[in-house]
Amino acid sequence: MNIESKLSTTSKNIKSSIIRELLKISDPAMISFGGGVPDPETFPREELAVIASEVVSKEYKFTLQYGTTEGDDVLKKQYIRLLEEHENIKDLNNDNLLITVGSQQALYLAGLTFLDEESYCGVTRPVYLAAASAFAQRNPKFISVNLSEKGIDTDYLESELIKLRERNELHKFKFMYVVTNFHNPAGITMPLDNRKKLIELAEKYDFIILEDDPYGALRFEGTKVPSIFSMNSERVIMLNTFSKILSPGMRIGVIIGNTQAIRRMAMAKQAVDLCCSPVTQRLTARFLERYDLFEQIKPTIELYKHKKDVFMKAMQDNLGDIKGVSWTKAEGGLFTWLTLPQQIDTMEMFEMAKKEKVLYIPGEAFFVDNPLKNTMRLSFCLPTEEQLVEGMKRLRRTIDKYCAAKGIKL
Amino acid sequence: MNIESKLSTTSKNIKSSIIRELLKISDPAMISFGGGVPDPETFPREELAVIASEVVSKEYKFTLQYGTTEGDDVLKKQYIRLLEEHENIKDLNNDNLLITVGSQQALYLAGLTFLDEESYCGVTRPVYLAAASAFAQRNPKFISVNLSEKGIDTDYLESELIKLRERNELHKFKFMYVVTNFHNPAGITMPLDNRKKLIELAEKYDFIILEDDPYGALRFEGTKVPSIFSMNSERVIMLNTFSKILSPGMRIGVIIGNTQAIRRMAMAKQAVDLCCSPVTQRLTARFLERYDLFEQIKPTIELYKHKKDVFMKAMQDNLGDIKGVSWTKAEGGLFTWLTLPQQIDTMEMFEMAKKEKVLYIPGEAFFVDNPLKNTMRLSFCLPTEEQLVEGMKRLRRTIDKYCAAKGIKL
Repeated sequence: MNIESKLSTTSKNIKSSIIRELLKISDPAMISFGGGVPDPETFPREELAVIASEVVSKEYKFTLQYGTTEGDDVLKKQYIRLLEEHENIKDLNNDNLLITVGSQQALYLAGLTFLDEESYCGVTRPVYLAAASAFAQRNPKFISVNLSEKGIDTDYLESELIKLRERNELHKFKFMYVVTNFHNPAGITMPLDNRKKLIELAEKYDFIILEDDPYGALRFEGTKVPSIFSMNSERVIMLNTFSKILSPGMRIGVIIGNTQAIRRMAMAKQAVDLCCSPVTQRLTARFLERYDLFEQIKPTIELYKHKKDVFMKAMQDNLGDIKGVSWTKAEGGLFTWLTLPQQIDTMEMFEMAKKEKVLYIPGEAFFVDNPLKNTMRLSFCLPTEEQLVEGMKRLRRTIDKYCAAKGIKL
Repeated sequence: MNIESKLSTTSKNIKSSIIRELLKISDPAMISFGGGVPDPETFPREELAVIASEVVSKEYKFTLQYGTTEGDDVLKKQYIRLLEEHENIKDLNNDNLLITVGSQQALYLAGLTFLDEESYCGVTRPVYLAAASAFAQRNPKFISVNLSEKGIDTDYLESELIKLRERNELHKFKFMYVVTNFHNPAGITMPLDNRKKLIELAEKYDFIILEDDPYGALRFEGTKVPSIFSMNSERVIMLNTFSKILSPGMRIGVIIGNTQAIRRMAMAKQAVDLCCSPVTQRLTARFLERYDLFEQIKPTIELYKHKKDVFMKAMQDNLGDIKGVSWTKAEGGLFTWLTLPQQIDTMEMFEMAKKEKVLYIPGEAFFVDNPLKNTMRLSFCLPTEEQLVEGMKRLRRTIDKYCAAKGIKL
């Protein structure tokens, strides 16, 4: 039968993610700066193995049974404690939290709960690809706001909001989506004044801020900036995940927000998948009870910092002489964002890079409109030190060959 | 802020499931025929605990990392073997399978992939509530087809299809959704000739059959009927789950279908939650490698059969004398469907039942239109034998009190 004729409009519009496709390449000679996946050697596997066995054999009435859609209360208690201790967020209770299948489901539920086809939603340029594709399932109109080391371009955002108000469409602007710390892909952290300005706009023009913070705990250097949620718990919905600090295999994300919003998102989750696995929820909860997660990840942060330093030096050594090149200096997280001379199209260059056995994510993937084609996302957390240096050499070779072939003078 | 004003139309239309709400009642004096949840004592917890520890400590590079959206190949291999051995389904490969977060996500992905607002989808009367609510997220038009011990009313379905063809809308009819074995809530199994007739219609009018079979392995008596998928693997998409035969806490479902359909549903899953937990996927896979699942569940089936017999006798003893009462005789699964005299509204009677400390699911919940209000779903798998008998006495008391209060003569 012809399945194509049966597809929904939404399905016809879905494109497969280039990042997911990249993760499928398993050539051992390839050095990948592509995936944003953490180093599996950093996971506390022995501790988790012991607890996994315990929660299955001793807590089977909970772990092996259906759970509630809202999530495991034992896990929520631990998470609320972490938010108090590390984010200075007080007065939360279980009804402010919804446990999700990683951040991806949280993003999807936000789209399902707030967006219609006629809705507007604000995203950054560049934007976290998988967030844009979660929202795109609802087919909304995007307002795309530049992101730089100063944060998001609030002047531009306000000018667009004013236009909407003039067209009597302001009520259709549902939320502005931001990744506040060590942005994926841009590596940038929104400064405090920029966060405050965004809250001001949200109050003035009545919209939700969707604050996504998967990397905040992975700070190597510099000073922590308070979360937007900690400054306005009413209007901000915060998304968090254990994928980068404990293990992505748990598939545990958390949405933190006002009780009304959480209730609505839980009702959506009920239709989407009923509940998260009680096994991985309780496993995570007992781990958090028994170990100090933030103490536990210190060596990981040291490791990533070291890799970042090696990587930054290799980048300077190999690309520093190219006129018009620039990159962001991440104080944490997994990524840096490289901008090459304008004539270079990194998507076009990608096949050559594969031949040179080095992978990156073409920047084009991170825009909902008007992509900057001379950009790329590079992740430094998974390759070894040697691979970081060798990979950067290969990247330079790729650039040289590409430019030679295209007659571009560097 | 006023969250209501920010909600999507879809979110505004979602109603919370009465079943999920019921599952939250935790009064130990209550006897519940409500939830369709398996008995946790039947789960192989010690075996699962040992394997859980092993897959986390030894296979951490897989289990604690992100997985592919399509699912764990080791699990797929085991599942393909089970389908060969127990369902006589041959020639499947990994691309015919997608692993999901239980059956609920499979249902949701089917809706997302095939339904638009202008689409039609066929469901039964009564219908599995959570399936209807998964499809309802897409806001399609439902065609509701009577289900009886003869199967679904294919004459009615065909008459509706002819109407659609006359209106030139036949291409908008995407799929017919059926639970083939021990239907939830009806307890009914579709006979072979009814299955064949449905395939005939699907071929003639070009639609997909969505065959949901969560209970098929739980047959107590009678003869197994071949799955619709085994008779037409091109046009049928089959949904399966480990929730009823291994443990719902794994949150592992499987979609089996032609490669095109599976690819489209995987692309939708990518946006919805990226991937299922590799921990519970690999745990399930290694369990299936090491143990004979169908041997393992034999005591469970014996237990359920025994409970069913006790329950059926208690029903006969307590309700048998009511004129106009009838119930379905399930040959497997977890449910029976009770029809009371027409004047009785089981939703209205529900508060009285709670006072008598017995719970059921009012039949009204299982219809997308024109509910039969004098029906209810009863599950016999979770209460003890004593509770089954005592619960049925309480149900009779509830009915008597309700009828007395309403002036209904039994």
